[in-house]
Amino acid sequence: MPPPPGHRPTDDWARPGYAAGVRLDLSASAADLTARLVDIESVSGSEGPLADAIEAALRDCGHLSVARDGNAIVARTELGRPRRVVLAGHIDTVPVAGNLPSHLEQGLLYGCGASDMKSGVAVQLRLAAEVTAPAMDVTYVFYDCEEVESERNGLLRLSRNNPASLAADFAILLEPTGGVVEGGCQGTLRAEISADGERAHSARAWLGRNAIHEAAGILNVLRDYQARQPAVDGLQYREGLNAVGIRGGVAGNVIPDECVVTVNYRFAPDRSGDQATEHVREVFAGWHVRVTDVAGGVRPGLGSEAAASFVRAMGGSPRAKLGWTDVARFDSLGVPAVNYGPGDPSLAHSRGEHVAIAAVLECETRMRTWLTG
Amino acid sequence: MPPPPGHRPTDDWARPGYAAGVRLDLSASAADLTARLVDIESVSGSEGPLADAIEAALRDCGHLSVARDGNAIVARTELGRPRRVVLAGHIDTVPVAGNLPSHLEQGLLYGCGASDMKSGVAVQLRLAAEVTAPAMDVTYVFYDCEEVESERNGLLRLSRNNPASLAADFAILLEPTGGVVEGGCQGTLRAEISADGERAHSARAWLGRNAIHEAAGILNVLRDYQARQPAVDGLQYREGLNAVGIRGGVAGNVIPDECVVTVNYRFAPDRSGDQATEHVREVFAGWHVRVTDVAGGVRPGLGSEAAASFVRAMGGSPRAKLGWTDVARFDSLGVPAVNYGPGDPSLAHSRGEHVAIAAVLECETRMRTWLTG
Repeated sequence: MPPPPGHRPTDDWARPGYAAGVRLDLSASAADLTARLVDIESVSGSEGPLADAIEAALRDCGHLSVARDGNAIVARTELGRPRRVVLAGHIDTVPVAGNLPSHLEQGLLYGCGASDMKSGVAVQLRLAAEVTAPAMDVTYVFYDCEEVESERNGLLRLSRNNPASLAADFAILLEPTGGVVEGGCQGTLRAEISADGERAHSARAWLGRNAIHEAAGILNVLRDYQARQPAVDGLQYREGLNAVGIRGGVAGNVIPDECVVTVNYRFAPDRSGDQATEHVREVFAGWHVRVTDVAGGVRPGLGSEAAASFVRAMGGSPRAKLGWTDVARFDSLGVPAVNYGPGDPSLAHSRGEHVAIAAVLECETRMRTWLTG
Repeated sequence: MPPPPGHRPTDDWARPGYAAGVRLDLSASAADLTARLVDIESVSGSEGPLADAIEAALRDCGHLSVARDGNAIVARTELGRPRRVVLAGHIDTVPVAGNLPSHLEQGLLYGCGASDMKSGVAVQLRLAAEVTAPAMDVTYVFYDCEEVESERNGLLRLSRNNPASLAADFAILLEPTGGVVEGGCQGTLRAEISADGERAHSARAWLGRNAIHEAAGILNVLRDYQARQPAVDGLQYREGLNAVGIRGGVAGNVIPDECVVTVNYRFAPDRSGDQATEHVREVFAGWHVRVTDVAGGVRPGLGSEAAASFVRAMGGSPRAKLGWTDVARFDSLGVPAVNYGPGDPSLAHSRGEHVAIAAVLECETRMRTWLTG
């Protein structure tokens, strides 16, 4: 049994057989630590064991004050520095796709969450444990349920329960960016588009109306959809409108009277959540549209002094963040934020997800230099 | 707790509070009895309480020998008559669609199963209880799981466990036929047609391939399909190919890599199960096709002496049975069979399913006259 949230671990933790809890060795390399994190399965909603392990490891660091909220953990230096930065990352993953446990192959670590974003979390943990005297105070945030609807997001919960714990001058999300700073983020909207029909016995189908056949129209709209690719504040965004789920059917001999397609619209930050909603309703005019979840994007904002100095320190040319990230949450809290992490964003959520060991180590080195500079 | 299968009820049944079991009064009119049967919910797989009630009521009839097999009941007269006829009906229904309890409106009884086929079962029960000296021996068969895949069918189970109990010179299925004899039956085939794709993060959909969008092609085939309407032995059949289910999706932010459409092909009895399978594979050439369930149809066979005499006694012009029924099962046991019952087949499996009280009473009268003639 893992210890209750907030429990302060003692030597009992090390006693064999004490607990099913797992331990993390933060003195291991960021590469080894990433593999360890990947192997602790943490699909959204099931982050408990990983959160326990992270909490226990951070509580062993005497220079940090640690607090827990559900499966989110906040660890802070309290050095009285004039500036404070947040390093944040989510600890959950999308559902496993036959890609656990992790394995290493020619310098690449494969496994669910390797890119999105346990390699970033590994860098956070390494820095938290080893940078005991940073040039600015640092708040390390590890949170749950980022990969699901925004209402369950652990950072949202933290921002409601204890907004002061997230206060800072600047925030970095260690989401996968391929080692360059990615500015802003696209918004995301989910909606259920449904076709209806009329039930009948399937031996006399002409007496009913088949809702699944009607839904061909919805899928044809999706298949033919031309997504926008606008430039916003000098960065190139790329939208997308996709089915992410479909369901329909009553029984094996009944013409079904409903078919529901769940769509996900990713929209550039020149469009608000309301405008995105209106767009989806227009695209599916004639169908039933129920918007279930909207999270607006954020314009890049790389003009701020904090962002600009971070970009200079990390090198490379910044580009647009296509995925929605919690830079939007920090933006709404008044904290300028960017994305910067070792993973390759194009591999996130794919079966073949992996991360280059060299990229993880380089990210750690650059961040460490910047924090201690 | 209902009594165990095969338990012989005693007076304890009538003692208030003895059991959750319900009682059927077979001296009530066929109309009242139909309403009572409709109100005892019996979706396929959940026929226990109704089977218990039917068994108990039949065991009260001294002129019948009663046996039970799972949720199927067989009640027989043993009068040593030279000929034996089977009257058979299934006691299960498709899933309830907000259409319970039953209600009576202008001579029509509404409710799940009213047409398919609790009105037929009510006629069977009335005849079983009251026709104590029929001109031919009668076997009354009540069985479960007709509305689901054929492997679960209660009549199939009976035919394997005790084929002798189904032996007869002729069989009548009291399936809904609108009060005319319906000959033969169409076959039915179910298959899963699937589209595949490649997972990716839905913010970078172009890196994957959306299986749900691909499935538009499957639905377009179904929407454009032209069904055959062949004449077989003088009766007009009408085929159909329909989606009865669809599923796909991994998570709200993942491009899905699989979408599965379940289709139901109803085919005329001039086509065998193998030919139907081949046809479906041709229609969906280029997709993954997995046939899960095939039950062949039966040609009308109204030329047999037994069938012809029954048709004369019931009156009207016989027509083709479009739904698959267990006439096919009797056919395979060497027992000629037809469909004849009070329900309207076009209402089966619809939300507004109902039966005309007058039709139930007329069916009972005609059958009673024929049995005693």
